[in-house]
Amino acid sequence: MPRIALDAMGGDHAPDNVVEGVLAALADGPASCEILLVGRTADVAAALDRHGGASSRIRIVEAPDVIGMAERPMVAIRGKRASSVTVGVGLQKKGEADAFISAGNTGAVMAASRVLMGLYPGVERPAIGAVMPTVGKTVLFLDAGANIDCSPRELRGFAHLGAVYARDVLGRTQPTVGLLSIGEEEAKGNAAVKQAHQLLKTETVPFTFLGNVEGRDILDGHIDVVVCDGFVGNVVLKFYESVARLFTTLIEREMEESVLTSPAMERVFTKLDYSTYGGAPLLGVRGVCIICHGRSSARAIKNAIGVALRAVESHLSQHIEADMADRGAVA
Amino acid sequence: MPRIALDAMGGDHAPDNVVEGVLAALADGPASCEILLVGRTADVAAALDRHGGASSRIRIVEAPDVIGMAERPMVAIRGKRASSVTVGVGLQKKGEADAFISAGNTGAVMAASRVLMGLYPGVERPAIGAVMPTVGKTVLFLDAGANIDCSPRELRGFAHLGAVYARDVLGRTQPTVGLLSIGEEEAKGNAAVKQAHQLLKTETVPFTFLGNVEGRDILDGHIDVVVCDGFVGNVVLKFYESVARLFTTLIEREMEESVLTSPAMERVFTKLDYSTYGGAPLLGVRGVCIICHGRSSARAIKNAIGVALRAVESHLSQHIEADMADRGAVA
Repeated sequence: MPRIALDAMGGDHAPDNVVEGVLAALADGPASCEILLVGRTADVAAALDRHGGASSRIRIVEAPDVIGMAERPMVAIRGKRASSVTVGVGLQKKGEADAFISAGNTGAVMAASRVLMGLYPGVERPAIGAVMPTVGKTVLFLDAGANIDCSPRELRGFAHLGAVYARDVLGRTQPTVGLLSIGEEEAKGNAAVKQAHQLLKTETVPFTFLGNVEGRDILDGHIDVVVCDGFVGNVVLKFYESVARLFTTLIEREMEESVLTSPAMERVFTKLDYSTYGGAPLLGVRGVCIICHGRSSARAIKNAIGVALRAVESHLSQHIEADMADRGAVA
Repeated sequence: MPRIALDAMGGDHAPDNVVEGVLAALADGPASCEILLVGRTADVAAALDRHGGASSRIRIVEAPDVIGMAERPMVAIRGKRASSVTVGVGLQKKGEADAFISAGNTGAVMAASRVLMGLYPGVERPAIGAVMPTVGKTVLFLDAGANIDCSPRELRGFAHLGAVYARDVLGRTQPTVGLLSIGEEEAKGNAAVKQAHQLLKTETVPFTFLGNVEGRDILDGHIDVVVCDGFVGNVVLKFYESVARLFTTLIEREMEESVLTSPAMERVFTKLDYSTYGGAPLLGVRGVCIICHGRSSARAIKNAIGVALRAVESHLSQHIEADMADRGAVA
């Protein structure tokens, strides 16, 4: 039975949203898993009491320290070895959990994962993938902000990591992968993108390489994976928030109350809120690590548990390791 | 009286949208200007007839060649010296017009402007500025795609060009300028952005330098100018289209016909359509050049004429030249 560890202390609404999300996941699904809630036992137990949740499938793992959202990652994980982040990440290393989910300090989760779990051979840098809504199927967008100033080889690596994730977790049997640029022609792009294009074009890849795609293509629903460096990725994802807020504000200014509160409008706003899509996988580390938005709702946590389960059950980690080994053999 | 030249052959709906936009501008405003319609005389005259427009303030300037939207810019402007783009840009050089507006091949307009009009001393590269809607006042976003792989000095130059434009044309007396990055701290960003931050922080600038701003800040209405390289700018602007399309599709799927066709929803969609905001200025070239979207409506052309007039009447070009000269003195 898969064992999913959660950072019970991470995020703006912890531990209550985490506990609620866990209970919803357990109540909901036929999927069978064990939950490890990592954090201050008293706080977590109290939250479980508040939400009426006693379950033989939930266990609390004591972690007395908490890393704040604004703490510097490396300083925090070195200084707080008994934090919910470091203890939670460490469970996979010790073979006591199969996945870790956190809505806490993203940098700390990344740093702990790299330091405690390590990277697969062949992975230059781990990437964060964000799953976004489109007019059709969702799109995996990476790197979402972990890696600035990426080399062509690193961009190529993100394409591989993203394709394995799209196949295993998003269920795309032959994933399509596009390289984010400013024109479809292979000569268009900045220096790193143009070279990454050549690397991907000239190797045999276990996915369909679409070549360059443009900003307007990201959400058009026809691409499974969009690859960019973390600077562009961070700007685009945060810009998405900005556009969503503009849209919401305009609608609220112009439309009548009856329209604003209608179930139809509710569905629109829910679909636009990509933070509910179940968290962002940290890809390339030895294990399954899902990073959630600091403002995650119980629903977002529940969705992240679903994502983590799919990652474990589809053997995502093993497939990434195999893909990297194949690349190593031909590189 | 300001003389505004327009590329009558440029864009998907030329010459009719251009002619309609001109007639609307002349009918509408107290602003007094002379219009030069550059293109094939017979085509332009026929369009004027179709839209009932005879005016002593409109003159046709013959240009027998047309540059297609997909032609390679430098090849096109060298090969078609009698095109509406080259003739139109050339009018400013000859002192026969004060501004040029085109919805045609953007690369060709840029190349012709650089070659025929030249750059102000101190301008490393011209930038394209896009004016976007926000929840408050509009924001000037540059470079919108003209310059890939920018140096820190070039990014600094965009901040200066943008600030002069914001003051003269957008009416911001003390413009605020932000450098697009992935965190507010000055140590956050890619290599070029971090160095540009230091350049702008340590010089005396005739605007308020806000330091780094993030993707989520672009449309929040508190910033007058957002600076980035043209790779990021192009991706963000095209992504904006993608998000706007996602919104529109979701709304159309979910809402009833009565809501979709309401004036309130019309206002929302109009506000989101940044292509109507009056075109993108090409900044740094010796003169006034406004680039419009290839799909520009008559309304967009009319708005671009308003923008060109403000640029001419506010002496934008002279102010850019003076700003560059001041920088040259201290650099």
